[in-house]
Amino acid sequence: MTRVSGDGDTAEGDVEPGSDRMPVLLVRGDREYLVEPGDEMGTDLGVLEVPEDVQPGDTLETHLGDEFQVRRLRGPDLFHHFERTGAPMVPRDIGLVIGETGIAGGDRVLDAGTGTGVLAAMMGRAGADVVTYERDADFADVARENMALGGVSDAVDVRTGDVTEQLEDLEPSSFDVMTLDTGDAATMVEHAPELLVDGGFVAVYSPFIESTSEVVETAHEVGLSDVTTRETIQREMQFDDRGTRPSTAPVGHTGYLTIARNE
Amino acid sequence: MTRVSGDGDTAEGDVEPGSDRMPVLLVRGDREYLVEPGDEMGTDLGVLEVPEDVQPGDTLETHLGDEFQVRRLRGPDLFHHFERTGAPMVPRDIGLVIGETGIAGGDRVLDAGTGTGVLAAMMGRAGADVVTYERDADFADVARENMALGGVSDAVDVRTGDVTEQLEDLEPSSFDVMTLDTGDAATMVEHAPELLVDGGFVAVYSPFIESTSEVVETAHEVGLSDVTTRETIQREMQFDDRGTRPSTAPVGHTGYLTIARNE
Amino acid sequence: MTRVSGDGDTAEGDVEPGSDRMPVLLVRGDREYLVEPGDEMGTDLGVLEVPEDVQPGDTLETHLGDEFQVRRLRGPDLFHHFERTGAPMVPRDIGLVIGETGIAGGDRVLDAGTGTGVLAAMMGRAGADVVTYERDADFADVARENMALGGVSDAVDVRTGDVTEQLEDLEPSSFDVMTLDTGDAATMVEHAPELLVDGGFVAVYSPFIESTSEVVETAHEVGLSDVTTRETIQREMQFDDRGTRPSTAPVGHTGYLTIARNE
Amino acid sequence: MTRVSGDGDTAEGDVEPGSDRMPVLLVRGDREYLVEPGDEMGTDLGVLEVPEDVQPGDTLETHLGDEFQVRRLRGPDLFHHFERTGAPMVPRDIGLVIGETGIAGGDRVLDAGTGTGVLAAMMGRAGADVVTYERDADFADVARENMALGGVSDAVDVRTGDVTEQLEDLEPSSFDVMTLDTGDAATMVEHAPELLVDGGFVAVYSPFIESTSEVVETAHEVGLSDVTTRETIQREMQFDDRGTRPSTAPVGHTGYLTIARNE
Repeated sequence: MTRVSGDGDTAEGDVEPGSDRMPVLLVRGDREYLVEPGDEMGTDLGVLEVPEDVQPGDTLETHLGDEFQVRRLRGPDLFHHFERTGAPMVPRDIGLVIGETGIAGGDRVLDAGTGTGVLAAMMGRAGADVVTYERDADFADVARENMALGGVSDAVDVRTGDVTEQLEDLEPSSFDVMTLDTGDAATMVEHAPELLVDGGFVAVYSPFIESTSEVVETAHEVGLSDVTTRETIQREMQFDDRGTRPSTAPVGHTGYLTIARNE
Repeated sequence: MTRVSGDGDTAEGDVEPGSDRMPVLLVRGDREYLVEPGDEMGTDLGVLEVPEDVQPGDTLETHLGDEFQVRRLRGPDLFHHFERTGAPMVPRDIGLVIGETGIAGGDRVLDAGTGTGVLAAMMGRAGADVVTYERDADFADVARENMALGGVSDAVDVRTGDVTEQLEDLEPSSFDVMTLDTGDAATMVEHAPELLVDGGFVAVYSPFIESTSEVVETAHEVGLSDVTTRETIQREMQFDDRGTRPSTAPVGHTGYLTIARNE
Repeated sequence: MTRVSGDGDTAEGDVEPGSDRMPVLLVRGDREYLVEPGDEMGTDLGVLEVPEDVQPGDTLETHLGDEFQVRRLRGPDLFHHFERTGAPMVPRDIGLVIGETGIAGGDRVLDAGTGTGVLAAMMGRAGADVVTYERDADFADVARENMALGGVSDAVDVRTGDVTEQLEDLEPSSFDVMTLDTGDAATMVEHAPELLVDGGFVAVYSPFIESTSEVVETAHEVGLSDVTTRETIQREMQFDDRGTRPSTAPVGHTGYLTIARNE
Repeated sequence: MTRVSGDGDTAEGDVEPGSDRMPVLLVRGDREYLVEPGDEMGTDLGVLEVPEDVQPGDTLETHLGDEFQVRRLRGPDLFHHFERTGAPMVPRDIGLVIGETGIAGGDRVLDAGTGTGVLAAMMGRAGADVVTYERDADFADVARENMALGGVSDAVDVRTGDVTEQLEDLEPSSFDVMTLDTGDAATMVEHAPELLVDGGFVAVYSPFIESTSEVVETAHEVGLSDVTTRETIQREMQFDDRGTRPSTAPVGHTGYLTIARNE
């Protein structure tokens, strides 16, 4: 393999998460590989060696001379490259959580349950330090691998276990945001006032109205503010020669999102 | 004023955007002030002096002895504290832009037009370097003040002017994401393939179907991929003793969001 | 009063519900009166005498010489002219009930509770014979007056009382459709298999998800088919010089509509 | 064939559309036939002879002794038994047209284009006299057969041709309602003020926003009132042991419905 372009300096993407050891995407037409600097990658077009100082914008060549473009990994790419242990939260819902809670650099987030880990990874990429709990040990292992793939192993601490049984490990007022995607989210909402800093948010994602109702009731009981539950419906628009119309494709309800604030 | 609690060390929030000079919120019941370390603040409960080393979690006292809690500023707080030069994009739509484009640390974003600047500030808080253009010079001034208030002056460069007339200032392939909220967004979409890196996203926000249609057509013409337009409808749920139902409150269409990728 | 045009023959509207004694609308600009043939009507523009053989299309004159147009009453007019004893079902939802159950001439409908009576009147106008129950005696009286106003006294039998306590008055297999808009609709759904003919429909309208859930469970238990619950969201579109967009006005959730069939 | 139950009197369904010659449904499990009195019907379970005086509620037997129940035809059955020449309007949208315009006994309706004819048949069954135009001669033939199948041949006059070229056949002020489901609906909306009685409604059904926009503009130009366009979104609810949630199935946008009134 030979690097055919790109000078390897760090002018582009030299900040986190673009650090030296950040995974990058190798792309050629429909082919797409998520690799780490130093990897050797076997493809049907030959072997690719990824230099330690590989940078987005570089062009790499297989030993057979076929070129791949080097790209920075973006959040939506995680959906294609993460190994799935269930249906991951979609970009839309991740965005809603991030937008409504204002996830940003320096945030400390308590997340349960991890699942595939896309939400945790996206929050890590936005600068948050995330502690996330997954009850299924195999799923937790996959999630840890996914964090490595996503270049956020340092930012996201995947813990195996049921967070409701490990509350003693969590310090009071040590989280800015709690994100809950578990069947018994209400149990954790009960602890939100002690776990969250003043002004912190809890976001609960639930597909069912009954568990949502429980969450809302608990949130009111423990004194959280601005308790709001929303359902989001999205319609894709179709533009063609005959005219413009909403698509008749599924709109994909994925859940009710409840937001409450500790104040 | 006396600090009555909090040791002033930086154990909490010592990363960006929680740096020494980061603005903080002073909160007491319904009173809420966004202040910078070192500020002196006159309130109806007396004067508050904000120490240089103020930290979230501290308690401050006015010279009359009334206490205020110190809170870290969160994204959704920007909606209340930013001076408005028009209706700012709502947290929901900001979240959708962030979620669908994967805004994260190290991203270079080209944004037009700035408006109140909430989107730019939220992206800055998520670790992006943002260049944003605002045609109205007065609005641009307000946006600059808002960036200071939001503690993201370093991350967000507010430029006065029409970006379509300043294209020569922008280097090819120098942006990971373009976010457009202007009437003539289609003109900028035309330049997306040269301005964006490979795999970069453009997100266009438009209230009207006609301009959205133009954007979609242009996106196809210049060869962008995965061109998708969605309309988002949100319903708030009401939980009370009689039962659960969607609220009859306005759902607030705020616009069509078109996403396309440079690949 | 003098009829100034219209020959009084019955070429126009000589079928039901346009029979001789059908109420008609007198309209002049924003003024609108619902009157019966033979009525004498005092208006701020003078007294109007309505001939026994008044016909839609006629022009009538007050004793002061001001003209009113005679119009046939249409279903949507009932919303403005019926005395209200609560929020009446909106035309949209009435249409959905009629469309999904196929209300037509000759249908025998069991309706509970009557409320203002717009649904019952609309079904009567579409040719159905309706028996409707209203628990509140005062409301039932108002509903009876509304049926007279709507010209459907013969088609709609308003009964005072709780239908669940008067089941012995109802013959088995004597209804084509049941329409239920009461808090305890599930109780009536239990009896749908005996009360409905083969292939008959039951339509239940409920604002709350909990009572809807009960209805659905009961419908399955008693063996009804094609049990389907839908929520309907409507968006008004705005067309102006700037472009086309959905209105931000409330969309007005009014309830969940559950349809099931007896087969 | 022997009638095994039912006395053939007309106590049940003796009004229109249940007249002597009204088609009825023969149902046995999943088998369902739409037949006319006097028909002889070959089925895989033997031959069924339908008596001239067949009535809903009767039980008929094939010559092999298998029983079929006789059912009255209901509107929603038309969707299964009508021969299709395109996607028919769904019950929901038919209901919205009927509810918003108040279709009732005695109405004279001008309908274009007929298509499969379900809307025309449903309005005929609700007591309206319908004149409907279909440009495609073959489609018009099928629609005529469908009207016979639906028992509304007397109520619905299917005319072959483009209504915009046959305006001279239509008398001024001779319609209570116009229902338009054609690409050039705006052309007919132009004539709504002369064709409709005072207080009459025009309802236009269009899948595309551009043609809807044209219709709205024309409606305003010719002075129609209360011009309103709505998009309808329906969500099916799912109830199961895990909880209640909206279905992720397609919501089926079928079109924009514009209603305007002649006043």
